[in-house]
Amino acid sequence: MLEKVDLSRKLGKDEYRQSVKELGARLGELQRRQREAGIPVMVVFEGWEGSGKGAQMNQLILPLDPRGFRVQNITDSFMSDPFYPAMYPFWRAIPPAGRMSIYNRSWYRKAIELWRAPEESGQGEMEKKLEEIRSFERQLVDGGYLLIKLFLHIDRSEQKKRLQRLKSDETKGARGQEELNAYKNYDDILPVLEEVIRETDRAHSPWTIVEAHDRRFATVKVLSVVARALENRLNQPKIETVKEPVVLSELEEAVTTPTVLSKVDLSLEPDDSYKKEMSSLQRRIRRMEYALYRDRRPMVVAFEGWDAAGKGGCIKRLTQEMDPRGYEVIPVGAPNDFERRHHYLWRFWQDFPKAGHVAIFDRTWYGRVLVERVEGLCSPLEWKRAYSEINDMEKQWHVSGAIVMKFWLQIDKDEQLRRFQSREETPEKKWKITEEDWRNREKWDLYEKAVEEMLWRTSTPYAPWAIVEANSKDYARLKVLRTVLSMGEEALGGVR
Amino acid sequence: MLEKVDLSRKLGKDEYRQSVKELGARLGELQRRQREAGIPVMVVFEGWEGSGKGAQMNQLILPLDPRGFRVQNITDSFMSDPFYPAMYPFWRAIPPAGRMSIYNRSWYRKAIELWRAPEESGQGEMEKKLEEIRSFERQLVDGGYLLIKLFLHIDRSEQKKRLQRLKSDETKGARGQEELNAYKNYDDILPVLEEVIRETDRAHSPWTIVEAHDRRFATVKVLSVVARALENRLNQPKIETVKEPVVLSELEEAVTTPTVLSKVDLSLEPDDSYKKEMSSLQRRIRRMEYALYRDRRPMVVAFEGWDAAGKGGCIKRLTQEMDPRGYEVIPVGAPNDFERRHHYLWRFWQDFPKAGHVAIFDRTWYGRVLVERVEGLCSPLEWKRAYSEINDMEKQWHVSGAIVMKFWLQIDKDEQLRRFQSREETPEKKWKITEEDWRNREKWDLYEKAVEEMLWRTSTPYAPWAIVEANSKDYARLKVLRTVLSMGEEALGGVR
Repeated sequence: MLEKVDLSRKLGKDEYRQSVKELGARLGELQRRQREAGIPVMVVFEGWEGSGKGAQMNQLILPLDPRGFRVQNITDSFMSDPFYPAMYPFWRAIPPAGRMSIYNRSWYRKAIELWRAPEESGQGEMEKKLEEIRSFERQLVDGGYLLIKLFLHIDRSEQKKRLQRLKSDETKGARGQEELNAYKNYDDILPVLEEVIRETDRAHSPWTIVEAHDRRFATVKVLSVVARALENRLNQPKIETVKEPVVLSELEEAVTTPTVLSKVDLSLEPDDSYKKEMSSLQRRIRRMEYALYRDRRPMVVAFEGWDAAGKGGCIKRLTQEMDPRGYEVIPVGAPNDFERRHHYLWRFWQDFPKAGHVAIFDRTWYGRVLVERVEGLCSPLEWKRAYSEINDMEKQWHVSGAIVMKFWLQIDKDEQLRRFQSREETPEKKWKITEEDWRNREKWDLYEKAVEEMLWRTSTPYAPWAIVEANSKDYARLKVLRTVLSMGEEALGGVR
Repeated sequence: MLEKVDLSRKLGKDEYRQSVKELGARLGELQRRQREAGIPVMVVFEGWEGSGKGAQMNQLILPLDPRGFRVQNITDSFMSDPFYPAMYPFWRAIPPAGRMSIYNRSWYRKAIELWRAPEESGQGEMEKKLEEIRSFERQLVDGGYLLIKLFLHIDRSEQKKRLQRLKSDETKGARGQEELNAYKNYDDILPVLEEVIRETDRAHSPWTIVEAHDRRFATVKVLSVVARALENRLNQPKIETVKEPVVLSELEEAVTTPTVLSKVDLSLEPDDSYKKEMSSLQRRIRRMEYALYRDRRPMVVAFEGWDAAGKGGCIKRLTQEMDPRGYEVIPVGAPNDFERRHHYLWRFWQDFPKAGHVAIFDRTWYGRVLVERVEGLCSPLEWKRAYSEINDMEKQWHVSGAIVMKFWLQIDKDEQLRRFQSREETPEKKWKITEEDWRNREKWDLYEKAVEEMLWRTSTPYAPWAIVEANSKDYARLKVLRTVLSMGEEALGGVR
């Protein structure tokens, strides 16, 4: 593939000057339109050591408004923490709507570096990496991101020439011995590179190979490709959202709705030893928290449930004896303006816990398939796609060593009414109940359907849902603590 | 996941009768509209042994017009030949536009049967199968197919009860001992099944679990789900195709076009020993043909090239000494009406060679990214997606043991003119040259761009392109035969 590329292509000075001038003007204008249209853009520069990535990036940003873009250097330290999921730093760094991120190296780095891995383990690792990359890129593109991927290509002898010239240069372009000798590995890297490029070259995020022997040629190509991609995207018609289906009869509606919740036994009550068991559980949870810290295992505990189902109370009991340095409670509301300008999963990647820490989410990324679905805040296409996107995200967390668990707190409609009324009657609780709660309650059936589908489509062995019978608050709290403990201890390999 | 499903759901007789009547009428009407709209539909019935797939399928087809659907039983023998690519029988059996195929078991069978595989080898095999399935389904959905996937779920004790009842039945529902004892493996199959369902549950082809303890409930659910899916699809707005980009300047156009062909040395000529070498090559090719047959390896040889580049002559020399029972030459023209009513890759799956045989394609599936692209016979989205779809198909062929190679016959514009003129001047060759050839020639530059991109995006180690310098016919013929031989012999493990 790469050997077939004609690297002898050149451009004369005059042609080059004229082109760069015209392209620069066009890019400036396109960037303005891109910002206006709110399109987030990611431009990836990959290429051989010494192929001139830095110089080409500079040519690209020259005509751009610096308020609209950001250069992201993907250094070793950027990707360093092995206890974070592989895509974590990249998810965090995606640009908001209307902005452009330009990557000097990228999420492809770790895949390409697998050329060092031994044959057997290498192939499995490679498949995993490629799948992560494809999933990442597909989610971004589905979420409205424009991806432009450039690979700067030079052949081995050109690379050798350039790096040897650098060796005698004092600054060495800030390169170490290994980089300066990179040409020695050219033939080993080549097939890995070709596989990576081929397996991630998709219609929605294609690769462009830039012939980089001639600097002028490369510049004009980079500018042209970026301009064309922006133009294409700006000319794209908005895709209409799919109309919702004809309403079915009540019976058909009932029949096609999955049911999980109907089996939940809401009459469950704790036995008399509540207090004793609670304090014993809390002590054990504190011990588990230290074990997590020692083993550098991150834990994600997610809470969803009906309004007034008692999420707050459960979280309070769960954390009561925990070391505050080891956990964080993340209350999740409607996204703020800045969050809204990113992919909907972005803010949850931000809050992913450090290795050894616990993140407790009070409401979660499942808002996409609950409130956003029911209230029509996203299109059917978007929430339908969210199930596998969320499963993918949780799988990546799990694969990186995280312990992930999710609680659905179930109460019935009568119990909710009792709690709403009691809140309204109790002055110190009155703030807890709003008009919105009553409005949500009217949509109980729609929410129930969404909950059922969520429980069904996102129950996975790597991130299971525990359904908590929560008509009795005490029972619910005990069950939550017991579950956190048993899942945590199992993942840590038994009690310590 | 599956254990969470409430299997106690039931339906009363009256409700059932009323519903089935209404749904039946609606399905009949929907089927009529689906045929009119030319939508191809695939309904998959998977489920536990004894869950009642046959009975439910019968309920579904009752209200349908028999001219519009076809039931496909996926038996052992349907999937049997291990020398065909795994998805081959399923690709062949996809329905044409406006028709419905109803599958009793499906392409999921082989994945689910991996529960028998030992742990270590199992996981790698599973990943491969799941990826094949996802690729198959995504290509179909992208190509306009509607997929409806139903899983009939019963629990272990229900399965045991049903199968034991069958044991005393004389017909046994045509089941063997193994099927009748299937419940003994229930707990081993369950986690595999859950993985398969989870990893193939996508927004574009979601799974529906049908609670199948109560036959009436299951029927109403099946009919409702199929009706709803058809309705959804018929209500879907047509997605506008993306506008093409603003035309770039000539220089930018040139710069962004990949070049492979410019490096081709068209002055190459064979040396004097042409005749001798040709007959030696032909003898060796015949020997290779037998080796392929003995080893049951299929071989695919694909020819593309400019009009009058000499594909026919090369194919003639290649096959001159071959055993006609071992190969087939498949001339590919514009698809006929029936082919046009299928996915564009369908007809090429039809022609995939039997194990041990050679299929020689005179023009190929690359028409999608050549003539269909240049002549606007498909949308930009479609031909852009085709590169990875074609790579996927060729990879599946390769993985199943096929030897796949592709030839691009390159001549320059002057040489083509000479050949066109000579054809017009020679009475016995005049039929070979048409108005269309002249029209295509006017679009040389557009075709060249398409060829460059094709060569670049579909050169893979598992199905490489050989670019043949074909200004000299003799040189081209020798190079083709040499290449077929060296690639064939290498794949067969050296000369035999």
